[in-house]
Amino acid sequence: MAKRVINFYAGPAGLPLPALERAQAELLDFENTGMSVMEISHRSKEYEAVHNEAISLTKELLAIPDNYKIILLQGGGHLQFGMLPMNLLYKGRKADYICTGSWAEKAFKEGKIVAGDDARCIATTKEEKYARLPRREEIKVNADSVYVHFTSNNTVEGTQWHSFPETGSVPLVCDMSSDFLWRPFDVKPFGLIYAGAQKNLGPSGVTVVIIREDLLAQCLDKELPSYLRYRIHVEKNSLYNTPPTFGIYILRNVLAYNKSIGGLAAIEKNNRKKGELLYGCIDRYAGFYKPFVTVPGDRSLMNVDFFLPTEELTDAFVKGAKAAGMVGLKGYRDIGGIRVSMYNAVTVENIQTLVAFMDDFAKKNAQ
Amino acid sequence: MAKRVINFYAGPAGLPLPALERAQAELLDFENTGMSVMEISHRSKEYEAVHNEAISLTKELLAIPDNYKIILLQGGGHLQFGMLPMNLLYKGRKADYICTGSWAEKAFKEGKIVAGDDARCIATTKEEKYARLPRREEIKVNADSVYVHFTSNNTVEGTQWHSFPETGSVPLVCDMSSDFLWRPFDVKPFGLIYAGAQKNLGPSGVTVVIIREDLLAQCLDKELPSYLRYRIHVEKNSLYNTPPTFGIYILRNVLAYNKSIGGLAAIEKNNRKKGELLYGCIDRYAGFYKPFVTVPGDRSLMNVDFFLPTEELTDAFVKGAKAAGMVGLKGYRDIGGIRVSMYNAVTVENIQTLVAFMDDFAKKNAQ
Repeated sequence: MAKRVINFYAGPAGLPLPALERAQAELLDFENTGMSVMEISHRSKEYEAVHNEAISLTKELLAIPDNYKIILLQGGGHLQFGMLPMNLLYKGRKADYICTGSWAEKAFKEGKIVAGDDARCIATTKEEKYARLPRREEIKVNADSVYVHFTSNNTVEGTQWHSFPETGSVPLVCDMSSDFLWRPFDVKPFGLIYAGAQKNLGPSGVTVVIIREDLLAQCLDKELPSYLRYRIHVEKNSLYNTPPTFGIYILRNVLAYNKSIGGLAAIEKNNRKKGELLYGCIDRYAGFYKPFVTVPGDRSLMNVDFFLPTEELTDAFVKGAKAAGMVGLKGYRDIGGIRVSMYNAVTVENIQTLVAFMDDFAKKNAQ
Repeated sequence: MAKRVINFYAGPAGLPLPALERAQAELLDFENTGMSVMEISHRSKEYEAVHNEAISLTKELLAIPDNYKIILLQGGGHLQFGMLPMNLLYKGRKADYICTGSWAEKAFKEGKIVAGDDARCIATTKEEKYARLPRREEIKVNADSVYVHFTSNNTVEGTQWHSFPETGSVPLVCDMSSDFLWRPFDVKPFGLIYAGAQKNLGPSGVTVVIIREDLLAQCLDKELPSYLRYRIHVEKNSLYNTPPTFGIYILRNVLAYNKSIGGLAAIEKNNRKKGELLYGCIDRYAGFYKPFVTVPGDRSLMNVDFFLPTEELTDAFVKGAKAAGMVGLKGYRDIGGIRVSMYNAVTVENIQTLVAFMDDFAKKNAQ
């Protein structure tokens, strides 16, 4: 038996153990092919079955309507930051961006590289260090926008949109890298969704993109290098070039596991329970554990940032947790303090363990 | 013990068994971290050690001078087809392309998408179905070229440059996806080399790029989306964004194995022996096994295309080989016949097994 720690990394992050055990068992001989899944041609029927299952499980888990296409790409969120405006912002077409954290800001910056002032920031909470989300009345969507880009969960700052921005007839485009599949949601207001796999879905190196047909029809085509065209990947079912086969295989394993435990409704229930436990503890010791996020309704159920009274206590917390088998708790460099990332693979029991440690730590160290 | 087949796929392809066994053994607990290597933050010291070892082993195996930078990207050869001209062909800067097969043609086509007529095809053997490489006197390099692009091994057609094109002071740029590290070579005439990992190096989803400082200094910068800039990846040691950590880990395992068996000199010796055995057999039954490549000096030691007298015999060959534990021999769709891909992980013994089968098959079926 491998000795496993409790993994609170912000990404790459922990994956469900059964998905990894399945990979380990067949790493040298995938389904009696006599090869590892990473050694098989991407044109073989054995690989194509995995590939198509990953796509169909995504569709099934989210109940995605038929007018959406699901593609699997490389390059992570960063490449999407560029591909999105390259495909959609040309000849003066404009888009709006909502800036709610350092990742949202990067997406906007890349939009400006491609489209200049045609990429517009319509709301930001930067002056408040992104410690809350913009309120509804702070967001004014431009009617001439091709899309409104936002980031559903802000990994660094620990805020999360619990109800999505309302943009009327302008399609939402969303970077869901850090909370994709944490719960069911209605995809219909979205024109495009993208998510790097390395938080909730699988290893780094795979990006899921979901694109609605009307937005796809507007994408630039022959003027762009082929790999950067959404349409070519849709037309070729993400087999235009050699896809990251092993990453997609692990994604398939994770999605199949998600389905086996009851799908996104069951996963949401777990995630809400984890949030209640952890935020309950933080609020119980409000003078000792100080949350970064200022508006409770904006708190993320994926990434939880808080501070301890001193640097010494922060270090002692990280070290003590590590000694108790919990890793990845050190806060992001620009913010400091503690960050607990609790993606789908973190269990309720894992959070109970953390909360017991936090209870004990607060009792021993709070004045 | 996993039952393994002999894998002649053109890519993704077989990997050295010890590299995979190492991955399997520690898939749930990498170096006593209590996590899979794919679950660890890319900013952790444990992952960074793997990352840096992959880069330093590449440098060591090829004896790459210090004025070259090695980066690890995503998107495969296809993204490089676009990134290369996006970085280097701007404001009327021109480049030459040598077209020697369907992959070389794709690279040229993408060059034209980015640079229009500033990307120039200076030699092609398309009219001869790419069944040979251009002769030295057929290649006229333009003095105003920023680079001359070529494809060192033509995976589909089965030709390989055994001595590289001579381009004077114009730097070579090479797609080495299908024969990188098959032997030692002098990198000094090269301005840039790229190779998708899925043939000789590891799983799909990782691309090795080697770039010389003088070419790097000419790359476009702030005008390009960040992921598409070579310079940003060099400056950030390929950690600008989350790299494909598991793929890089397998690359590290393969490179470490390559070193352990005597490095590229030993690998070249094996590859030459494999070529002698297989081409020896084809030539022994010259009327029965008919090679696609017309010039013996252009024959590839990585991919070997040949035809049998009839479709029925071709099918019987593929089926018979499969029954004998050999897979991936069906020819590429545009060419037909048989293709034997024998990258580094294919052993001399594997080729002896194939040749014994071919001897037997020819004796039974040749008239």
